[in-house]
Amino acid sequence: MQTSYIHPNAKIGNNVKIGDFCKITENVEIADNVIIGDYSIIGLEMPHLKERKLYIGENSVIRSHSVLYEGSFFKERLETGHHVLIRENTNSGINLRIGSFCDIEGDCVIGDFVRCHSYVHIGKGSKIGHFVWIYSLVTLTNDPLPPSHIELPITIEDGVVICANSTILPGAVLKTGAFISANSLIDGVVEEGNVTFNNKSLKKAHVTSLIDINTGIRHPWMRHFADKYPAVAQERIKILLDKIIESKKQLNKTK
Amino acid sequence: MQTSYIHPNAKIGNNVKIGDFCKITENVEIADNVIIGDYSIIGLEMPHLKERKLYIGENSVIRSHSVLYEGSFFKERLETGHHVLIRENTNSGINLRIGSFCDIEGDCVIGDFVRCHSYVHIGKGSKIGHFVWIYSLVTLTNDPLPPSHIELPITIEDGVVICANSTILPGAVLKTGAFISANSLIDGVVEEGNVTFNNKSLKKAHVTSLIDINTGIRHPWMRHFADKYPAVAQERIKILLDKIIESKKQLNKTK
Amino acid sequence: MQTSYIHPNAKIGNNVKIGDFCKITENVEIADNVIIGDYSIIGLEMPHLKERKLYIGENSVIRSHSVLYEGSFFKERLETGHHVLIRENTNSGINLRIGSFCDIEGDCVIGDFVRCHSYVHIGKGSKIGHFVWIYSLVTLTNDPLPPSHIELPITIEDGVVICANSTILPGAVLKTGAFISANSLIDGVVEEGNVTFNNKSLKKAHVTSLIDINTGIRHPWMRHFADKYPAVAQERIKILLDKIIESKKQLNKTK
Repeated sequence: MQTSYIHPNAKIGNNVKIGDFCKITENVEIADNVIIGDYSIIGLEMPHLKERKLYIGENSVIRSHSVLYEGSFFKERLETGHHVLIRENTNSGINLRIGSFCDIEGDCVIGDFVRCHSYVHIGKGSKIGHFVWIYSLVTLTNDPLPPSHIELPITIEDGVVICANSTILPGAVLKTGAFISANSLIDGVVEEGNVTFNNKSLKKAHVTSLIDINTGIRHPWMRHFADKYPAVAQERIKILLDKIIESKKQLNKTK
Repeated sequence: MQTSYIHPNAKIGNNVKIGDFCKITENVEIADNVIIGDYSIIGLEMPHLKERKLYIGENSVIRSHSVLYEGSFFKERLETGHHVLIRENTNSGINLRIGSFCDIEGDCVIGDFVRCHSYVHIGKGSKIGHFVWIYSLVTLTNDPLPPSHIELPITIEDGVVICANSTILPGAVLKTGAFISANSLIDGVVEEGNVTFNNKSLKKAHVTSLIDINTGIRHPWMRHFADKYPAVAQERIKILLDKIIESKKQLNKTK
Repeated sequence: MQTSYIHPNAKIGNNVKIGDFCKITENVEIADNVIIGDYSIIGLEMPHLKERKLYIGENSVIRSHSVLYEGSFFKERLETGHHVLIRENTNSGINLRIGSFCDIEGDCVIGDFVRCHSYVHIGKGSKIGHFVWIYSLVTLTNDPLPPSHIELPITIEDGVVICANSTILPGAVLKTGAFISANSLIDGVVEEGNVTFNNKSLKKAHVTSLIDINTGIRHPWMRHFADKYPAVAQERIKILLDKIIESKKQLNKTK
């Protein structure tokens, strides 16, 4: 029984597996070896867009009950959880992974190898670098005086980690390798390699001071977690690691 | 291919567009010019209800993967995101807008022109006025000693703004024009036009003191955001603005 | 019109009601009197698992748009909200109830009569006892130095209550009858019957000190809420209540 709609003008690559009860609309291009989960809408129609094409790169996996609007571009190996929503004009690099129930609100630019866990809400216009980690229930807002007509999106640079349930306020800039601990409320600029805590009264700290006592492993995470990335990413991870370690000197000067 | 079920007794207005793979049940009435997104259940059956009718007012838009229970009434221009859940006995005024992944738990009364962003959880029995704004991940609870048989719903008056990731505790009353900043935990009564902060040690402040330094715009939001509402709402917004500004005098007396 | 797929090798009990647009896969066993909501995937295929069987006990209710992976075992009376996700290797006792939009990430062991409200995120490998209550937006994490290869799951013992929007950090142990108030960030061990507050500066308190002033009811909740459980659970609830009350003596000694 064929239960999915595939528009005859949609471009579908080789070895693409489309689940049941799906809808693939007219302006969609799906590259080779992609898997689309059941009950998904690929290319929700946005007739007002100038550029309506939705491109999904090769070797991507979209899990069930997901909705991707027209007008976005995802490089190879996009991977989503179930029940995700990605709105228009989102451009992501290689191997974006987002967990179930994520909501990417559109007009976002996302780098390579970014990972989001569940229920991550990425406000409209967010700029996210490469190798960023965002954990469950993190919200990136964008209106500094809600409600207003002002849009003040957030900038997250390479290698940043934002732990669970943190709220990032409009216009915040999280610089390279910053580490935002769980349940934080973040405003303004967080400097390179800095750690922020929920309890603001703690002194400034650098990410190199984060250590797991039981195992002795120490941040930045590129020291002990680079093996999760493919060979092509290793040189870039190494350069990023060096940059974050270097930022410790800068922090020491400003203390 | 016709893939949606529409019960023959359901009342469907003129120019209603029903998506694919939907279910419209027997006790549903949909007014003119409504759009129902794919994979939605309109009128999830609740046989124990006395009043099982579900009414969706004209010019409404329900986005995909949504579930609306029987026994609710929505005036014109209801607009939902994707994956929303609205349970029974919910009554809303004109132009309720709720974002994706919202969960309205039933027995709620909601005024006109209320807006909720994503993942808003509105506990059972909540009372919400007109022109209210609720941002992502806000939770309105209702049990003061969880778990218990006590239900102590929340009251939110006209023009209130609740920023992202705030938790409102059972029985709280947010009076006209109150502004709850991001990540707050709110208990008890918040007076008219008051601002609450996550950090409770800050002094009392009035919403008129909230200003965006870059643009110079100042709260209450009705000063700079009324243009987002239709002509019919303007007089009501003006009266509401005057009332909130007036409340500043009261705050000054109690300081 | 038959719109659901049921694999011919799936074992379906008597009086099972399967909604529309569902998928029931090969390794699934559904016991008698179960209801499966529309648009659900029962047995999302995980070919790499050694034990792929998914068992759903009798008198269970799975609501619409839900996804249950292969390789889990749920005793009788599992009840889920809409849009839930439960991954592989989850074993739950009698009458697990989880609210809409919950995400159980796999490898979890869950006791009898556990209740979760909406948007609860249960990290991989969590161990949850009997008669536990977890409210909306609670996150159980499992990586102590994110991102890393270390998995340090959370242990929640019998009768624990975790209020809305709390984040439980990796390796935390919440002992019998502990009560975590709303918006908390919890690390380490919470002793038997202890109450934790968002504001850490408050002194230690025991759950027996939690009282609703209006009604005079007092925690532990087993005093006033045991009537919500069936006769078969009453003796176990009584023993649990006695144990939690007894823990007050221990707290007094350590003050």
